[in-house]
Amino acid sequence: MGASNPILIPELRGMLSDGDRDGLRSVIEELHPATVAEFSEGLQDDEIWRLLSEATLERQADVFAYYPLPRQVALVEAADRVHLGSLLEWMAADNRDDLLRQLAPALVEDILPLVAKAERHDIRMLLSCPEGSSGALMTTEYASLPADISTGEAVTRLRLQAPNSELIYYIYVLDNDRRLVGFVSLRDLILSKPTAMVSELMQRDVISVRVDEPQDQVVLKLARFDFLAIPVVDDRGRLVGIVTHDDVLDAVRQDATDDAQRIAAISPLGESYLDAGLVSMTWKRGVWLTILFATAAVTAMVLARSPIPYPWLIAFIPLVIASGGNSGNQSATLVITALSTGDCRLSDWGRILKRESILGILLGTLLAVPGYFLALIYAPGPFEAMVIPITILSVVMLGTLVGSALPLLFRSIGLDPALMSNPFVSAIVDVVGIILYMSVAVIMLS
Amino acid sequence: MGASNPILIPELRGMLSDGDRDGLRSVIEELHPATVAEFSEGLQDDEIWRLLSEATLERQADVFAYYPLPRQVALVEAADRVHLGSLLEWMAADNRDDLLRQLAPALVEDILPLVAKAERHDIRMLLSCPEGSSGALMTTEYASLPADISTGEAVTRLRLQAPNSELIYYIYVLDNDRRLVGFVSLRDLILSKPTAMVSELMQRDVISVRVDEPQDQVVLKLARFDFLAIPVVDDRGRLVGIVTHDDVLDAVRQDATDDAQRIAAISPLGESYLDAGLVSMTWKRGVWLTILFATAAVTAMVLARSPIPYPWLIAFIPLVIASGGNSGNQSATLVITALSTGDCRLSDWGRILKRESILGILLGTLLAVPGYFLALIYAPGPFEAMVIPITILSVVMLGTLVGSALPLLFRSIGLDPALMSNPFVSAIVDVVGIILYMSVAVIMLS
Repeated sequence: MGASNPILIPELRGMLSDGDRDGLRSVIEELHPATVAEFSEGLQDDEIWRLLSEATLERQADVFAYYPLPRQVALVEAADRVHLGSLLEWMAADNRDDLLRQLAPALVEDILPLVAKAERHDIRMLLSCPEGSSGALMTTEYASLPADISTGEAVTRLRLQAPNSELIYYIYVLDNDRRLVGFVSLRDLILSKPTAMVSELMQRDVISVRVDEPQDQVVLKLARFDFLAIPVVDDRGRLVGIVTHDDVLDAVRQDATDDAQRIAAISPLGESYLDAGLVSMTWKRGVWLTILFATAAVTAMVLARSPIPYPWLIAFIPLVIASGGNSGNQSATLVITALSTGDCRLSDWGRILKRESILGILLGTLLAVPGYFLALIYAPGPFEAMVIPITILSVVMLGTLVGSALPLLFRSIGLDPALMSNPFVSAIVDVVGIILYMSVAVIMLS
Repeated sequence: MGASNPILIPELRGMLSDGDRDGLRSVIEELHPATVAEFSEGLQDDEIWRLLSEATLERQADVFAYYPLPRQVALVEAADRVHLGSLLEWMAADNRDDLLRQLAPALVEDILPLVAKAERHDIRMLLSCPEGSSGALMTTEYASLPADISTGEAVTRLRLQAPNSELIYYIYVLDNDRRLVGFVSLRDLILSKPTAMVSELMQRDVISVRVDEPQDQVVLKLARFDFLAIPVVDDRGRLVGIVTHDDVLDAVRQDATDDAQRIAAISPLGESYLDAGLVSMTWKRGVWLTILFATAAVTAMVLARSPIPYPWLIAFIPLVIASGGNSGNQSATLVITALSTGDCRLSDWGRILKRESILGILLGTLLAVPGYFLALIYAPGPFEAMVIPITILSVVMLGTLVGSALPLLFRSIGLDPALMSNPFVSAIVDVVGIILYMSVAVIMLS
């Protein structure tokens, strides 16, 4: 989804008011559907519908799917119901599913009777897959064949299926119970002799996902094997759909943005930054800022209760907290990204904690040295100055350990590591860091 | 690239020492190349070469490309040079390019004469594309056709090109000067009458990238138009290669990890977390921790020079700093992700700064209220307590403004916003936040 482009709006408005149907038709039929959506997004809802109505239903459905989802919802609400039913029939199953998930359930029940019966079954099936599951990413419009036909016959049958298939470059081979037994690529079909049998040509070692597996399994498998699509099967091994490369790419890009936002303590916006409303943005940032504020308030209360024994120690409070927080933030982000890319699994926790402990010692020592020299400026003497490097080493070790342990802990109890880790790491490292600092000072200086 | 899997290592070692060539061949020929690489990665270099040598060169090249790059380099260094030359000929051009970029230039010059002349030209061309450019992602193994042949003839010619093409589902149509004039999909070829001409069938509005455009242009275009591949042209519009969906997906996943690591002040590891060496990891984290430490040292020096006028103010130092840092971190991350996904452009800077200023006021007010109640506990009176909410509102506004302005500034001078922003935001907000805090206190309380 790209930004809307207003450059053609005056021309389009001119054509609409002049009734220049040929002009409108040439815009909508000749540009790429994504480009049509980009250039027409700035029109009013009723103007968009008038523009779309100049094209075939198939083309209308193609263009429609390229508007941002919130705009699609607005357009649906402004549309004629009967026209909507036919449009939904022409939309790709996965785009239609994305749209229907955004509509009020009552509206969906209103529209569904207007959609042809064959499609209605698919719609209900896709809508029943929970968000985040492989099923929610899939489309039901795949190409399939039986194993016991020749490749010449296969190409003929494929021609019939092509208009209703999102991807015809992979053809899935099914048995009589629709169980997935193999797949052939169109490349192999084209290269083979027309008399060869599909069963000789097909690969039997098919990599698939179950419909209820989480989406990241689809991403890992498609990225690992460089596939164009991954078949989705039910618990009896029957093919129910495919997830195609373009939807995986969209999901990966969206996940990356969501994760970065979660790590920075923002509930994922789920829409483009400039489109997000101020109220929703204030809420999505404010709720986490308030939680972080509450943890900082705990730090303030701890600090108020344990008065600083020597005034020169005050100046180092931000430095001590920052050292622990920064190293903890690094560890948490490394573990979160390694878990989400599949580089690490939960079962690697022992190796992860060991690595981070060693790194805590190395990085803590690295910072303790300049910390000591800085402390020499303000401390009464070289012995007293030792409070600072000892504290820095301790809080950096604390940071790396808490930073790596928390994402693992959250993952193990089924929470999203990206959502919760960094705020909690800061909270723990701040409070415990201040307590450590005061304890080291009291022990060494009294 | 997945983690290596040691489960078959004993069996493979057994087959190698027993000389069970049939067993080895069945492993390497029948599993998916990615799976072969996964299961054999735990072997010694010479054992891997003995396993590979049981397969055809084509298969060897397929499997080889699925080892992680550092391992590929180690294998190349342990290999027989002549065998290496033939293996490189069989590797896909883009995988080969990734590998050669990791080798010492002297070694590359050693190996190149062993590669067939036709491939050598492509290798030199790909190696000359700078990292991060579209050219560095592309492969030269595309399928192409002239416009003035029938689709029946096109399918016949395609059969000849297929073994040397990475992707035959999009066929690019070139004129006599190899300029890109259109493209047809294999789907359209298959569905058309064999007597139709390619020129009637082809789409003329081809979306392409220039070889020197940055990689994110490839990602944006491929994701936006749901293509399987994007053609890459030189400055005269001649086709020089294609970037395929799988390489874009890999690049997006790698960029997301790199960006998350940069935002957390880590130089991108560029390899899997558990594989990264401790020395390299200490360096990639330590250099940024040291820079952040230096900025925290400035905060400490500022604080040491402006002694706290009233002791109860000390307890709120971490809270003031955290409020500014957290809100700045949110703003910086939002702007960085919006710039990298293409949701915002540099030219939107006015809207971005306006949004963030408004959000600074809203979020600052949100935190100032609990801040005031917390201050009432420790301040001598309700008037004195006002220092805290006024400071919080100011530092949150400072945080959102600096957090959104810095990534824009870095982007405008050609730096990566993700690399530099968050550390500098923390640094500025910490120091200026402390100065603001002390100034508000002195003005209000004296």
